[in-house]
Amino acid sequence: MPEKIAILGSTGSIGTSTLDVVAQHPEEYQVVALAAGTNVDKMIEQVKQFQPLLVAMQSKEAAERVAREIPSHINVLWGEEGLIEVAAHQDATVVLSALVGSAGLRPTLAAIRAKKKLALANKETLVTAGHIVTAEAKRNSVPILPVDSEHSAIYQCLNGEHFEDVVRLLVTGSGGSFRDRTREELKDVTVEMALKHPNWAMGAKITIDSATMMNKGFEVIEAHWLFDLPYEKIDVILHPQSIIHSLVEFRDGAVMAQLGTPDMKVPIQYALSYPRRLPLMTERLDLLKLARLDFRPADFNRYPCLRMAYEAGKAGGTMTTVLNAANEVAVAAFLKGNCSFLMIEEVVERALNAHNPVSCPSLEEIDEADMWARQFASDIMLHSV
Amino acid sequence: MPEKIAILGSTGSIGTSTLDVVAQHPEEYQVVALAAGTNVDKMIEQVKQFQPLLVAMQSKEAAERVAREIPSHINVLWGEEGLIEVAAHQDATVVLSALVGSAGLRPTLAAIRAKKKLALANKETLVTAGHIVTAEAKRNSVPILPVDSEHSAIYQCLNGEHFEDVVRLLVTGSGGSFRDRTREELKDVTVEMALKHPNWAMGAKITIDSATMMNKGFEVIEAHWLFDLPYEKIDVILHPQSIIHSLVEFRDGAVMAQLGTPDMKVPIQYALSYPRRLPLMTERLDLLKLARLDFRPADFNRYPCLRMAYEAGKAGGTMTTVLNAANEVAVAAFLKGNCSFLMIEEVVERALNAHNPVSCPSLEEIDEADMWARQFASDIMLHSV
Repeated sequence: MPEKIAILGSTGSIGTSTLDVVAQHPEEYQVVALAAGTNVDKMIEQVKQFQPLLVAMQSKEAAERVAREIPSHINVLWGEEGLIEVAAHQDATVVLSALVGSAGLRPTLAAIRAKKKLALANKETLVTAGHIVTAEAKRNSVPILPVDSEHSAIYQCLNGEHFEDVVRLLVTGSGGSFRDRTREELKDVTVEMALKHPNWAMGAKITIDSATMMNKGFEVIEAHWLFDLPYEKIDVILHPQSIIHSLVEFRDGAVMAQLGTPDMKVPIQYALSYPRRLPLMTERLDLLKLARLDFRPADFNRYPCLRMAYEAGKAGGTMTTVLNAANEVAVAAFLKGNCSFLMIEEVVERALNAHNPVSCPSLEEIDEADMWARQFASDIMLHSV
Repeated sequence: MPEKIAILGSTGSIGTSTLDVVAQHPEEYQVVALAAGTNVDKMIEQVKQFQPLLVAMQSKEAAERVAREIPSHINVLWGEEGLIEVAAHQDATVVLSALVGSAGLRPTLAAIRAKKKLALANKETLVTAGHIVTAEAKRNSVPILPVDSEHSAIYQCLNGEHFEDVVRLLVTGSGGSFRDRTREELKDVTVEMALKHPNWAMGAKITIDSATMMNKGFEVIEAHWLFDLPYEKIDVILHPQSIIHSLVEFRDGAVMAQLGTPDMKVPIQYALSYPRRLPLMTERLDLLKLARLDFRPADFNRYPCLRMAYEAGKAGGTMTTVLNAANEVAVAAFLKGNCSFLMIEEVVERALNAHNPVSCPSLEEIDEADMWARQFASDIMLHSV
């Protein structure tokens, strides 16, 4: 019996890679539902190739455009309701959640409550509401398989091990597009420059988050929730080649690592095939060609977003919601050319400083904090223009 | 209930490290029997500290000298019989075999037949009689836990994985004392120079084997038997820092690796504690201090012993027995100043070329090939002086 997959965010970078994996293993995986934002043409193409039972788009207009081009027996929904129907589709055994930003939270919770195995690429879900998502997964006995290359690496390193033997997680980061620039040199960087990631081809938002290392900060928070470890046991190290995807140190001094060429298909497939591994067409690691692997400190002064993520994570409650929401607004403004690169950090810092955190927040309190932070961040940027 | 340990080769480098591990965990491990060669003083010290029930020394004279200094209720034996009594001691639950050379074969088999869990550091046992030792372990349902850092690394990488998913083992090697010399520069190297291993403090024989990379060749053969993989799936790579102890590539392109500072206590303890890990006082890995890890090809022209090991392994039968026996004789001669460093390779090569291999040899045929190779190697060296 093939695993039946619903994909949230099917036309994005992770979504299309997931469909590549599915196409390589038609006997193992079958697509039952797809949800995307506004990319109508790509969705039509995906529907024709993978023949899902259900499709959802962000807007009514996009949904109607898709519906006109595909067989009429395929149901097409829209809006958050559509996302939630895809996430909880009765035939799905696993949901791959690759939405961008905190929009992924409610559909992800819907998948968990429908007792679907969760392959999670949408890190903002854990950043903004980690305590709710992990508690809900526990209550429903649903495993959360990480799709991020770093968390997948940690998951692989922990395979067969005992949790009590873990001393430390070591999350690696490339340092992003501007890793070889000083802070002084960041003043006038453009969107085009920021979008050139040295190792990974990814969506725009995450590429900017890599350049600020907010992405790594999110990953630290995500690791805290996924692996139930205090922040003191999670370190970040710069590793420019992105070959070692992360490491785990054990109490006997042994360190396990997962390596590979940077290709998201590997962690995606692992999340789907765990605890087995299937063949995969991907470029093989060649250590002789690489010749060396380098490591540098991840400096909090060079990367204030990383520092802020640790601080927000340790403070807990709605602080990480604000971290994420203010960052989303600032990154969107930067991508539109409405604020400078360094302004992203400033907006997030000011939002965190101004926020009165609520501990153990409910979903409603998270929504409130999220909205407050978005408004606050927008206001700062309006006034600074 | 503590694990009860018998140690073959307790006064050597691996033996003393094993006792360090035992001393760190008195509630977990208890020593019941110790065997050593000629180091009477060290054995007396070990007996006083660890209070075994049985002791064995290589010669009658050494045994008598030990017996005079320790409580009379502790039995002291000698010769191969003594080794075998230690290996099969009725109270032992695990036997750590750290003898040097093919002398370890019969005691190791005795431990297996007495159904002891085997922690194997004596790689020549698998090199000379891998098919017999592994078959005997299977027949007696005895696990063989590798103590070599490379094989322990592979064992750790395979933990929780499925054998069918393995594509390739990548065994790392430092390149030994002379890795930065050309072959031309090897002509006049001395024993003192050869004994200066860049990363590991080990016994004399294995340090010379590291300099010729015969040690790495033995490890390839050992890996072939331990992990039941053809030689085509076992590669060697030079990694000067000895931090990545080996790697395993899987069919999804993922590569798992085990890292750590070079300290034999880590693989020794893992062999004893598997599948758990216990705390261990050892220097922690600091990738920032290292800053980089390097990789180079393990060139068969630069290291003919590595080529010969692959050739002997693929040829099979008594060829690996001859490889090991000729090497033992030549290395012993080099350590005594009776032959040059490059002569080691020549002796082994000529022995392999002159040998008519027996396939699937019995223990008696292995003994015969072993004796033939020792005689042949001695004769070459006599005539070349």
